[in-house]
Amino acid sequence: MLTLQTIPVVIKKEIQKGDDLTKLFLSSFKDLQDGDIVIIAQKIVSKQEGRTVDLATVIPSLLAVGIASEYNKDPKLIEVILSETKRIVRIENGIMITETKHGIVCANAGVDESNLPPGTASLLPENPDRSASDFQQKILAKTGKKIAVVISDTFGRAFREGQTNCAIGCAGIKAIDDYAGKKDVFGRTLRITAIAQADELCGAAELVMKKTLNCPFAVIRNFEFVPSDDTAKSLQRPKKTDLFR
Amino acid sequence: MLTLQTIPVVIKKEIQKGDDLTKLFLSSFKDLQDGDIVIIAQKIVSKQEGRTVDLATVIPSLLAVGIASEYNKDPKLIEVILSETKRIVRIENGIMITETKHGIVCANAGVDESNLPPGTASLLPENPDRSASDFQQKILAKTGKKIAVVISDTFGRAFREGQTNCAIGCAGIKAIDDYAGKKDVFGRTLRITAIAQADELCGAAELVMKKTLNCPFAVIRNFEFVPSDDTAKSLQRPKKTDLFR
Repeated sequence: MLTLQTIPVVIKKEIQKGDDLTKLFLSSFKDLQDGDIVIIAQKIVSKQEGRTVDLATVIPSLLAVGIASEYNKDPKLIEVILSETKRIVRIENGIMITETKHGIVCANAGVDESNLPPGTASLLPENPDRSASDFQQKILAKTGKKIAVVISDTFGRAFREGQTNCAIGCAGIKAIDDYAGKKDVFGRTLRITAIAQADELCGAAELVMKKTLNCPFAVIRNFEFVPSDDTAKSLQRPKKTDLFR
Repeated sequence: MLTLQTIPVVIKKEIQKGDDLTKLFLSSFKDLQDGDIVIIAQKIVSKQEGRTVDLATVIPSLLAVGIASEYNKDPKLIEVILSETKRIVRIENGIMITETKHGIVCANAGVDESNLPPGTASLLPENPDRSASDFQQKILAKTGKKIAVVISDTFGRAFREGQTNCAIGCAGIKAIDDYAGKKDVFGRTLRITAIAQADELCGAAELVMKKTLNCPFAVIRNFEFVPSDDTAKSLQRPKKTDLFR
């Protein structure tokens, strides 16, 4: 097998609502090939889609005021988090774990204030799978290249310290590579049946993105995969089969 | 920044207790460089260290018989899992999540029957950090190359479907890259302060290891890191700060 390559793509411009992300990407990355996987940082997708909120305009609900008071938080920020939340999973030590409207379980419903002007918060893209698919289709239209696209965000985990990057949107690749029915070297059916390859691809991309200033894209090359219409929804464990909800 | 390379290293031999893993690695990988990170699959470390159990020799305790009966499992296998367990975190839907003697929270205390002769189970290495350090020191003695070493296993997660690879042992690299105090592009202190880079390195390695037959090693090149005496213990979230225990 070939060496897997993870190539950082630097964009010097601060992304604004309505920017053409494919144009910015193609202007910085001249060597796109069929089968490349483009990983995109969630933050630039949210900015491009205008998914940011000026906190000064937010009127907190009574619930937001109550939670903010209990945990010494900004009630306007809590209101934004609640507006993105389908279900609160846990609040403890001032950390809110929620299930977003998309079905993603993460801290603060993915609402984030980093790399934004003060007084601004970003939300997750409205439909990250659609955002990934739109990018993929535009690249196909402009270049003829058949690529896969994964949108990546940084999440904490239960049991383990530190965050890792995970897929919130996918286009063109299965989020999970299912080994079910495959045999091990002794001919036994493998019990670990499903690798969350989209999450591992985002982790690999993070290794170059976070180390590089202004690097919201990475291209992963030489990863063999079967093109698929799968979405990042298949990474969402339903509540009824989750041991920790 | 340079392209991150993840290079699969194929070993055709079935690993036996007492094999020299550095010799096998160096015989297959001729191009080792200072700063390379060698990722090693847990299974071959366990085999090399003789951390396997012939289930026929196991006498299950009453607790093991009880759990096995409740969940329709092999009592001998449950006994092996319990012998590696410090604390049972949860048992549900026939899945046992335990904290191992090392402090790692994972399914079945890391006990596994895949890629082993039938009737055999493997345990995690006794001290995976030490195993990583031993490999690193032997490579230094044999080649003069200063590398980092991470031992990788495949774990499930709360909330998300699919497994990803995670670090259970480290030598020569910080398991977590701490951003605390660093500023974002707007000069604000970053709130996401700690990337579990050792876990992301294992995920990147998994992308080449699982796709390649007989590939228990991967070499990651062009990853900038500060050499460190840190261990994989820093990835273990203490029970008192874990929202999900």
